[in-house]
Amino acid sequence: MPVSQTIGNSPPQPAVVALDVGGTFVKWLVADRTGVLRRGTTPTRAADGPERSFGVVLDTVDTALAALPSTHTPVGIGLAVPGTVDERRGVCVYSENLGWRELPVVERVLRHTGLPVGFGHDVRSAATAEWRLGAGRGIADQVYVSVGTGLAAALLLDGRLVVSGGYAGEIGHGGTLEGEPCTCGGRGCAETVASAAAIARRYTASTGIPVDGARDVLARAREGDAVAHRVWEDAVEVLGSVVADLIRVTGVARIVIGGGLVHAGEALLTPLRDRVRERLTVHPTAHILPAVLGGAAGSWGAALLGWEAADIDLDPILTAYADAVRTRSEPGAAE
Amino acid sequence: MPVSQTIGNSPPQPAVVALDVGGTFVKWLVADRTGVLRRGTTPTRAADGPERSFGVVLDTVDTALAALPSTHTPVGIGLAVPGTVDERRGVCVYSENLGWRELPVVERVLRHTGLPVGFGHDVRSAATAEWRLGAGRGIADQVYVSVGTGLAAALLLDGRLVVSGGYAGEIGHGGTLEGEPCTCGGRGCAETVASAAAIARRYTASTGIPVDGARDVLARAREGDAVAHRVWEDAVEVLGSVVADLIRVTGVARIVIGGGLVHAGEALLTPLRDRVRERLTVHPTAHILPAVLGGAAGSWGAALLGWEAADIDLDPILTAYADAVRTRSEPGAAE
Repeated sequence: MPVSQTIGNSPPQPAVVALDVGGTFVKWLVADRTGVLRRGTTPTRAADGPERSFGVVLDTVDTALAALPSTHTPVGIGLAVPGTVDERRGVCVYSENLGWRELPVVERVLRHTGLPVGFGHDVRSAATAEWRLGAGRGIADQVYVSVGTGLAAALLLDGRLVVSGGYAGEIGHGGTLEGEPCTCGGRGCAETVASAAAIARRYTASTGIPVDGARDVLARAREGDAVAHRVWEDAVEVLGSVVADLIRVTGVARIVIGGGLVHAGEALLTPLRDRVRERLTVHPTAHILPAVLGGAAGSWGAALLGWEAADIDLDPILTAYADAVRTRSEPGAAE
Repeated sequence: MPVSQTIGNSPPQPAVVALDVGGTFVKWLVADRTGVLRRGTTPTRAADGPERSFGVVLDTVDTALAALPSTHTPVGIGLAVPGTVDERRGVCVYSENLGWRELPVVERVLRHTGLPVGFGHDVRSAATAEWRLGAGRGIADQVYVSVGTGLAAALLLDGRLVVSGGYAGEIGHGGTLEGEPCTCGGRGCAETVASAAAIARRYTASTGIPVDGARDVLARAREGDAVAHRVWEDAVEVLGSVVADLIRVTGVARIVIGGGLVHAGEALLTPLRDRVRERLTVHPTAHILPAVLGGAAGSWGAALLGWEAADIDLDPILTAYADAVRTRSEPGAAE
């Protein structure tokens, strides 16, 4: 969409609609080339089945389009989706959270809206946002590790995201043959120990005491609770092993930690750096940094996917967004 | 170099000189666009220090150039080198075998010969040859694992080799914190158990009996030697864990096993496939295949680097070389 002055009447500004589809909520936003105009959340209703949850996605796109100020016109849609996502084909291969299987997301959203659709994996979208706007800016080789309900990584190698048919970075599953059974059917998968959900679950399993997430377990560990301390240490130990594997395989020297658990700050990062360092010998010391975009990373990434789909020059947009993130002038940018 | 007929005299055909520099021997060959014209080996003389071993490389280039038939003219040099190799900078960052440190290989060979120089890591060069001519043909996402004296991998993702400053695929080192001390300073590194050298060394350490390499240990295991059997199983177990890590991180579904140990054939591959399968849950079943170019893979890869450096269209060359490999008309192609 060309932007030029006409006599007596400004032409509409281009804008994108971006959705970060989670198992519980869809986070949406509408952004122009300088920043976010509107944002909101909608319950995903994943329990009502795949058609219903995909209907929520289409409804949310409509809601966001309707929220566009009259000064703006939509030029693209960006969608970030969890599960096994094949960006190259535009297909959600499998999402346990949403019940989607071989769902041609791009084709269906394009048919619904008539707008170009950018499509990505939720973790890879968050990673892209961190890479272009946040903790990873300007580094061509890096890995983003999301530690939240689940555990997964996104690989950026030589400036390009690795997809491998949707299976790249699925480090949370695949067993060590020993340890707790996992939802995937394996035993001792990293996700059974080193995710925010696992930390809470393992503490409750050991003590019978219900807790309010990993944050609560960390608070108890700080107050001298030995079980909380052990559960936290176990998580850091396994996460250290996973990060060391990521470095050994990819050779990157920059790791960005995102997802809910990173809010623990140095209580997570300091021992994690130690665990990684003691496992590596020939590799240079890794820079292990916290993500800076917080829970908004996926939506920012989806917005960038929308602009790319609209084939609009990203450089000035990236500059404007990065400024917004850096100065925290953008509400929710680093929530 | 244009190839055209002139009256009464054919113009010289283009050719490349390719070297696969190992810790013990430099394998060299001279190839035109249809296949290998000459080949040979030279002792590396690594023990005489880095300048001497680099001198051997330059001397070998001269030997190979002198071996060129008068009907041919050299248009490029290809070099494959072990250690930490940064192809992007043209530098050997570190090679324990050769004693090289921050050696600007491309610059020095270019100065010596005046010819364009293609430069690569030995494992990545072998992987490239398998990818373009051998077991990995036509697959954009795959990992090559070299199991010989050492253990290392090369990652081909979305049709591009991953380098990461030379550290990609260094899976042999970096400890599990338990197990045997490794030359790198770690403990329990995969290379201390799952390399051809480790298999021989561990058998001798347990029994006091000197053996002629991993092949000898396998022969003893087949004859019912319990220690040989355990050492072999340990190697397959650790290799299975390493391959599962490679798949978990990269998401690839194709693994090509190269290096000396692959000559064990199904005695290696069948249990390896089992070990990998039992460790993976959400990933598709991996195709684990033997390399087909054998000890010549590194030289073939170096030849391709030479053609690329000369900026000559690779497609017809790849077709001709792949035919040569497939029909085994090329001596030593699958030695």
